[in-house]
Amino acid sequence: MSNWQWQPEGSVTSTPGFLASGITAGLKKSGKPDMALIYSETPANFAGVFTSCTFAAAPVRVCQKRVRNSARARAFIINSGNANACTGERGLADAETMCRLTAEALDVAPETVLAASTGRIGVPMPMQIIASGIRKAAAALSPDGGATAAQAIMTTDTVPKSAALKLSLGGRCVTIGAICKGVGMIDPQMTRAPHATMICAITTDVACPNELLEELLFRNAEESFNRITVDGDMSTNDTCVVFANGRSGVTLQAGTAECEQFREALLAIMRNLARKQVMDGEGATKFIAVEVSGAPSPAAAKLCAEAVANSLLCKTAWFGCDPNWGRIVAALGYSKAVFDPDKVDVYYDDKIVVAKGGDAGTPESELAEILKQREFKVRIFLNQGDASYWVWTSDISYEYVKINAEYHT
Amino acid sequence: MSNWQWQPEGSVTSTPGFLASGITAGLKKSGKPDMALIYSETPANFAGVFTSCTFAAAPVRVCQKRVRNSARARAFIINSGNANACTGERGLADAETMCRLTAEALDVAPETVLAASTGRIGVPMPMQIIASGIRKAAAALSPDGGATAAQAIMTTDTVPKSAALKLSLGGRCVTIGAICKGVGMIDPQMTRAPHATMICAITTDVACPNELLEELLFRNAEESFNRITVDGDMSTNDTCVVFANGRSGVTLQAGTAECEQFREALLAIMRNLARKQVMDGEGATKFIAVEVSGAPSPAAAKLCAEAVANSLLCKTAWFGCDPNWGRIVAALGYSKAVFDPDKVDVYYDDKIVVAKGGDAGTPESELAEILKQREFKVRIFLNQGDASYWVWTSDISYEYVKINAEYHT
Repeated sequence: MSNWQWQPEGSVTSTPGFLASGITAGLKKSGKPDMALIYSETPANFAGVFTSCTFAAAPVRVCQKRVRNSARARAFIINSGNANACTGERGLADAETMCRLTAEALDVAPETVLAASTGRIGVPMPMQIIASGIRKAAAALSPDGGATAAQAIMTTDTVPKSAALKLSLGGRCVTIGAICKGVGMIDPQMTRAPHATMICAITTDVACPNELLEELLFRNAEESFNRITVDGDMSTNDTCVVFANGRSGVTLQAGTAECEQFREALLAIMRNLARKQVMDGEGATKFIAVEVSGAPSPAAAKLCAEAVANSLLCKTAWFGCDPNWGRIVAALGYSKAVFDPDKVDVYYDDKIVVAKGGDAGTPESELAEILKQREFKVRIFLNQGDASYWVWTSDISYEYVKINAEYHT
Repeated sequence: MSNWQWQPEGSVTSTPGFLASGITAGLKKSGKPDMALIYSETPANFAGVFTSCTFAAAPVRVCQKRVRNSARARAFIINSGNANACTGERGLADAETMCRLTAEALDVAPETVLAASTGRIGVPMPMQIIASGIRKAAAALSPDGGATAAQAIMTTDTVPKSAALKLSLGGRCVTIGAICKGVGMIDPQMTRAPHATMICAITTDVACPNELLEELLFRNAEESFNRITVDGDMSTNDTCVVFANGRSGVTLQAGTAECEQFREALLAIMRNLARKQVMDGEGATKFIAVEVSGAPSPAAAKLCAEAVANSLLCKTAWFGCDPNWGRIVAALGYSKAVFDPDKVDVYYDDKIVVAKGGDAGTPESELAEILKQREFKVRIFLNQGDASYWVWTSDISYEYVKINAEYHT
C-alpha cells in the first residue's frame, strides 16, 4: 500500500525550496531550449550515480569529484546539444568553468555546483554560448520552472519527462520531484563510481546524510534506470543526481521504517521516469517488459532478461507484431546463462507460446492481438530455481534507423 | 606466399569424388529451392563445429552424435525453410529420420549421414515433404551440382555463396571446395561442442584423422566465421562440416609443414565465405572491418572489437555515412575491457579521427568520403599493449528492419 499522492504536472520545483529554469542558450541548430538550471535556496544534501563507461564525460568526472569532496550542493547546471565527452583536459576545465560561472551567477561556492551535459560527443564546448546561457538561466529561475527545465534537457526525446509525489512521513509532508531525459544511447548501468546518456535530477525536502542518500539512490537505480534499454548502447554521460534540502523537517536515518517508506516513494519516481524513457525510446512503437523467473541464480535471470531485451531480432519482430518466439529462445540460448532448455515456458502476457522448450500451440492470431498492443510482457519461466529479473525495453523501427543514421545533434 | 589457385565458380563439387544437388522439396512458400544434398562416393573423414546455443537444434544434436560415434561420413542433407529447432523429441526423431531416408536413397549406413536445417524455429518438420525431397535430391546428384546446392540452402541470402581452391601439397594436387549460407541471426561462436544460423559444407580430397580435422576446423572457425556479426544474434542451428575423402593421395599429419599449408588454404576458403556472408548481411550496405590493436590483453582486444562491431548506434551511423566517432569510443567505454581512455587513437582507414581519446581534427568531409565506400576499416589503437583482435560487421539499414519485421521464413 503506497501512502503517497502523485502530483500531476509535478517536477523538480514541486519540492519547496527549489527553483528551476530552462532557456535557449544557442547550442542547438534547431534553436530549441538547451540549458536548464536547478537551484536549492539552502545548502542541500546530495548524491549521484553515474555512467560506468571508461570514457566518462568531463561533467561526470566533475560531479564525481563533488560527491567525494563536497558536503552540500546548491545547484545543478545541465546543457543539451553538446556532451562534453572525449574533450580531454580542455573539457574538464570547461566543465569546471560551467560550475564556476553558475556559482558566480548564484553567489554560491563553485564546489556546491554540479554539471551534466548531453549531445554530440567529442566537440569542444562553445564556452561563450555557455557563459551567456548560464546568466540567462540564473535570471530565469522560478518556483514554477521545472517544466521548462525538463524541456531544455531534451535531445531526441519527443516529450519532456517529469514526475512528483507527496508522502506522509512521521506526520510530516515530504515531497519528491524529478525531471529526466534520454531515449537513445540508453542502457544505463549507473554505479556509485561511474555509468547511460540519461540525465535525471531529483529534488526532495527530507534531510539525509549524503552516504545514506547515495545508498538509497544506487539501490533504486539498480531497480529502475539500470533495468531499461533502448539500444543496448551505454552512454558516456549518464547522470542521476538527488538533492535533499531538509525543509520538510524530516531527517532520514538508515534502517528505519520511515527511511524505507521514503526509499519506496523515491523508487516509484525513478521507475515512473524510467518507464517514460522507454515509452519515448527512439523510434519506439512498443513498450515490452521482459520478465524472467524460476532461474537457477540471479545472474542467470539477469543474463536471460538482458539477452532477450537487447536482441535485435526480437526487437524487430516485435515492431512487426510477429510473435516469433524462436528468436526469444535463441537469445536465451546464447545468453551464457546455464539452464535446461527443456524446462522453459514463455508467455506473451497471459498466452503461453513456449511450453517445455517447444511450441505451445497457441494460435498465432491470438498472439498477434497481444503483439499489436502498445505495451505487453514477455514472461519467461525457466522452472529451475527461484531467481528472477526484469528489464524494460522497446522495439526497433524504421524510425529508429532514421533517427540514428541522420542524427547530428 | 600462398601456393594455391582459386577456382572461379568452384564449390563443394570441385573436389573429386563429391557429388551434390539442390532441388525444390516444397518447404518454402516462395517455391524456391529448399533442399541440398552432398554425397561422397567413398567413406570420408569428417569433422564439424556447431552453435554453442543452449537451444541447439535437433540436426545439430544429431551431427554432434555422429562426430562422437562415427568414423566416416558419406552424405550431408540440408534443408532451408524450417530450422527443426525447439521441436523436442519429435524434432530429434525427425532429424534422425532425415538421415535414415537419405541413407536409404544412397544405399549407405544412416550413421554416415549428417543433417542441417535453417529457417523458422519451432515448427515441426513436414516429413512427407522432406521424404519426397530427399528422393528427388538423391536422384539429382551430379558432379556439377555444387552451385544448385548453394542456391538451395539460402534463406534471406540474396546471392549463393561458394568457393574452391587447389593447392600443391607434397607434389600432389589437393582441392578444397565449400558452400555456405547465412546473412541474419549471424554472430556465430561455433565450438567443437555446440554455436549462428550459418551453415557451411566443405569438401576436400586429403585424408586426415577426424580429430586432426576437427582441430584444424575449430582453429580456423575462430579466425573466420566466429569473427563475423550481422545482428549480434547467435543461432540455434549454426553448422560447419568438412568432409575429407583422401582421393588426392595426401594424408595429413599433425605438426607437419604440409598440414600447416593445408590449414592456411582451408582458412582462406573459410574467410572467403565469412566475408561473403557479411557482404550479403541482411539489408547491409557496408562491410566494416573493426581492427583493435595495442590492447593490454587478448580478452580486452576482443571485448573492444565486439562492442564496436555490435553497437546499434555505430551500425546505424555507418549506414548514414556519419563518421560519429563518439559512438565508437562510447562502445569501447562500455565494453568491460579495462584500459586507459586517454591513450586511444582511432582511424577510419588511413584517416585519424580520435587522437589520445579526443577529436583528432580531421575534417568531417574527408571522413565522409571513406564512410561512403562499400567497405572500410575502423582501426582502433589502444596503445597500451600488444594484443589484437578483429571482427567483420555490417551496417544496419531500413532494409534490415523490413526484412526482420516482416520475415516469416
